[in-house]
Amino acid sequence: MRIYKANILHTPSPNHFEVYQGGYITVDDNGIIQGVYEVLPTEMEDMPVVDFGERLLIPAMNDMHVHAPQYANMGIAMDMELIPWLNTYTFPEEEKFADEQYAKAVYDAFVKELCRQGTMRAAVFATTHIHATQCLAKTFDEMGMGALIGLVGMDRHSPEELVNTASSWASDMQSLMQSMADMAKVKPIVTPRFIPSCTPAILQTMGTIATQFKLPVQSHLSENKQEIIWVQQLEPQSTCYGDAYHRYGLFGQTPTLMAHCCYTDGEELKLMHANDVCVVHCPTSNCNLASGIAPVRKFLQAGVRVVLGSDIAAGHHLSIFRVMQYAVQVSKLQYALSDGKLPFLTLSEVFYMATKAGGSFFGKVGSFEVGYAFDALVIDDMGIHDVGLPTDCQQRLERFIYLGDDRHIVHRFCQGKEISLNSQF
Amino acid sequence: MRIYKANILHTPSPNHFEVYQGGYITVDDNGIIQGVYEVLPTEMEDMPVVDFGERLLIPAMNDMHVHAPQYANMGIAMDMELIPWLNTYTFPEEEKFADEQYAKAVYDAFVKELCRQGTMRAAVFATTHIHATQCLAKTFDEMGMGALIGLVGMDRHSPEELVNTASSWASDMQSLMQSMADMAKVKPIVTPRFIPSCTPAILQTMGTIATQFKLPVQSHLSENKQEIIWVQQLEPQSTCYGDAYHRYGLFGQTPTLMAHCCYTDGEELKLMHANDVCVVHCPTSNCNLASGIAPVRKFLQAGVRVVLGSDIAAGHHLSIFRVMQYAVQVSKLQYALSDGKLPFLTLSEVFYMATKAGGSFFGKVGSFEVGYAFDALVIDDMGIHDVGLPTDCQQRLERFIYLGDDRHIVHRFCQGKEISLNSQF
Repeated sequence: MRIYKANILHTPSPNHFEVYQGGYITVDDNGIIQGVYEVLPTEMEDMPVVDFGERLLIPAMNDMHVHAPQYANMGIAMDMELIPWLNTYTFPEEEKFADEQYAKAVYDAFVKELCRQGTMRAAVFATTHIHATQCLAKTFDEMGMGALIGLVGMDRHSPEELVNTASSWASDMQSLMQSMADMAKVKPIVTPRFIPSCTPAILQTMGTIATQFKLPVQSHLSENKQEIIWVQQLEPQSTCYGDAYHRYGLFGQTPTLMAHCCYTDGEELKLMHANDVCVVHCPTSNCNLASGIAPVRKFLQAGVRVVLGSDIAAGHHLSIFRVMQYAVQVSKLQYALSDGKLPFLTLSEVFYMATKAGGSFFGKVGSFEVGYAFDALVIDDMGIHDVGLPTDCQQRLERFIYLGDDRHIVHRFCQGKEISLNSQF
Repeated sequence: MRIYKANILHTPSPNHFEVYQGGYITVDDNGIIQGVYEVLPTEMEDMPVVDFGERLLIPAMNDMHVHAPQYANMGIAMDMELIPWLNTYTFPEEEKFADEQYAKAVYDAFVKELCRQGTMRAAVFATTHIHATQCLAKTFDEMGMGALIGLVGMDRHSPEELVNTASSWASDMQSLMQSMADMAKVKPIVTPRFIPSCTPAILQTMGTIATQFKLPVQSHLSENKQEIIWVQQLEPQSTCYGDAYHRYGLFGQTPTLMAHCCYTDGEELKLMHANDVCVVHCPTSNCNLASGIAPVRKFLQAGVRVVLGSDIAAGHHLSIFRVMQYAVQVSKLQYALSDGKLPFLTLSEVFYMATKAGGSFFGKVGSFEVGYAFDALVIDDMGIHDVGLPTDCQQRLERFIYLGDDRHIVHRFCQGKEISLNSQF
């Protein structure tokens, strides 16, 4: 067992930060939290303590929507809306992942950068290429980080070099599951690209396999107005965009992540709630692609779960702390635009989305409660406070979220294991 | 004379970047640009060249709305709208600047951080305290950076410790002008806080002094809906918020910067255009205080000038590159919300706002044209491109703006003089 001492902050519930100033956390040999204390229990007083001093100890980040093969496009090419952006920038880049060597170089850099930014687990879109996707899974596994790896299914309205078929996807999925069988923290996730790229045939196959192997599902939903009109044309029998997934067993029949939901309302919101489908809010992406502002407060009021995603390369940055900023900020614009009718998100609410809410897709992850995996970051924020250290730890965390960066993250743990940026794959 | 070689980018006009790949720039002993070349003229071939290799050379940033005394509040306390935020967080912090020692510590840190983030000139709000304001001016001057320094005028609806009067402001302003007489790049700017804090008496005095000494003016305009209603009540005889400044000679009678303008339209927009009043767009601030989205495209279409401001501590970060990101992003949200009627801002447009447009308030500053001051940054962006350096310099600059930070700024020049972060005041 290990004992860590630090200024500990986490969000067991979204409404406030729980703070242990100079507190202790005990972690067993499997990386599972055994207790959190303000004062160390008497029976542990003689045990060695890893003392992080005045530093902050917080749960690690979970990125619940991220496209690993778009890493090289991060920070460029943001002058278009979704559909032309996909065709002009994204698909040509993803085609390169037929080349395993290219894939390995990009995926190595991607996983390392994810780690640098403090994200220990992610729900990831790969491409349609099985070998590249296996390489991505192996990279996460060797790094000791957690991931849900999505071999993308797409069989229409896409470049020839990028499509698969219902049967090729199903057989590749079998290979993927086999190659991941021994990975403790890396698992598969069923990943239809989005309705416009998927015929009923491939959706049907994906829904069947998701149910058969009890696999989670991830996709995109109601991101852009033109996209939604296109889906209505392609799936006229569906009552809403979400229903087009639901008809094929891909909307809550197993745990489901749906990215964006900028225009989700009415029937679709009810269907999400009824099926406990989780929204992945990607505010940086929604800004960059001019998609709009997802009505997150409305989702929360409707009892729908919300987590956060960087969605690179539509999002411009891998830091989930950066995504938290935008989640609060765009909710404030929505508050202003709604004349105050939709209260804006608080920092503890978005922190909860990035930690405990997102972590729930990986088991007991994202909180410092007993029985949870010790996924944690140690933050040395001294350099930020050049005119005086705030005494209030929550204020220090707030400043780190708004002003800090990877320089201030000095230790990273995934289920108790310290993850080093110098790992060689 | 000095000759610099690098990949040079700037925006003489807002519509596109002008790029000199492996180009040359010549700067005279006064720090004034003598020429920019793709190929070095024959007569200079034997002169020594400072070669920045593959690095980017761009104009330095101009921050046209920033509150120096709010530096210690940066990145915290963003859970309120404008008026309660001022009363709860901002005014109590500004009261501390009666203490010169405190002021010196904060202003030293502020100017250094501004420099670190690549900003060489700024239009700054100080407080109502003359000694602290003189200290701020001195700090900029000793650092070798440019500034317009605003001794704030405010004489109502504010804490007793923070108000001045028309006559005390006028006499302090004389002292300030005297103490700045020998400063080459640091000048005074007439700075009424905003209409709710200023009686007709102080506004009248400020307008008179602005006109008499031909001083520029800066203030806040139409930032928040509640604020606008309050101004209507306080100044019922004015046709709009802007007219309340105009009546006192503070709205374009001399060069004028008005921050925010989230709700400027109709009569007020016409008045701004007629008087060539310049909008300071502060998108990070407008997000954080839930103010709204300034209709920047509408301003540009109306022929109104627009520059950028960090507006800390309502803005959460001093980097104008960060502000550029938000300027593009909130314009994209506005584009989505207007169903495409207001085209979003391009990167060259916001870069122009941060460089040549803002720089115009300091003379010939912000562009690499002949006769302009050599205010420049050298960007070493190699670390950003871990999966391959783009051949296109503009794409490299775009990635730096979205992904880079102060680590990538390796040299900073203000009017030809290299500014060092290690300067001791």
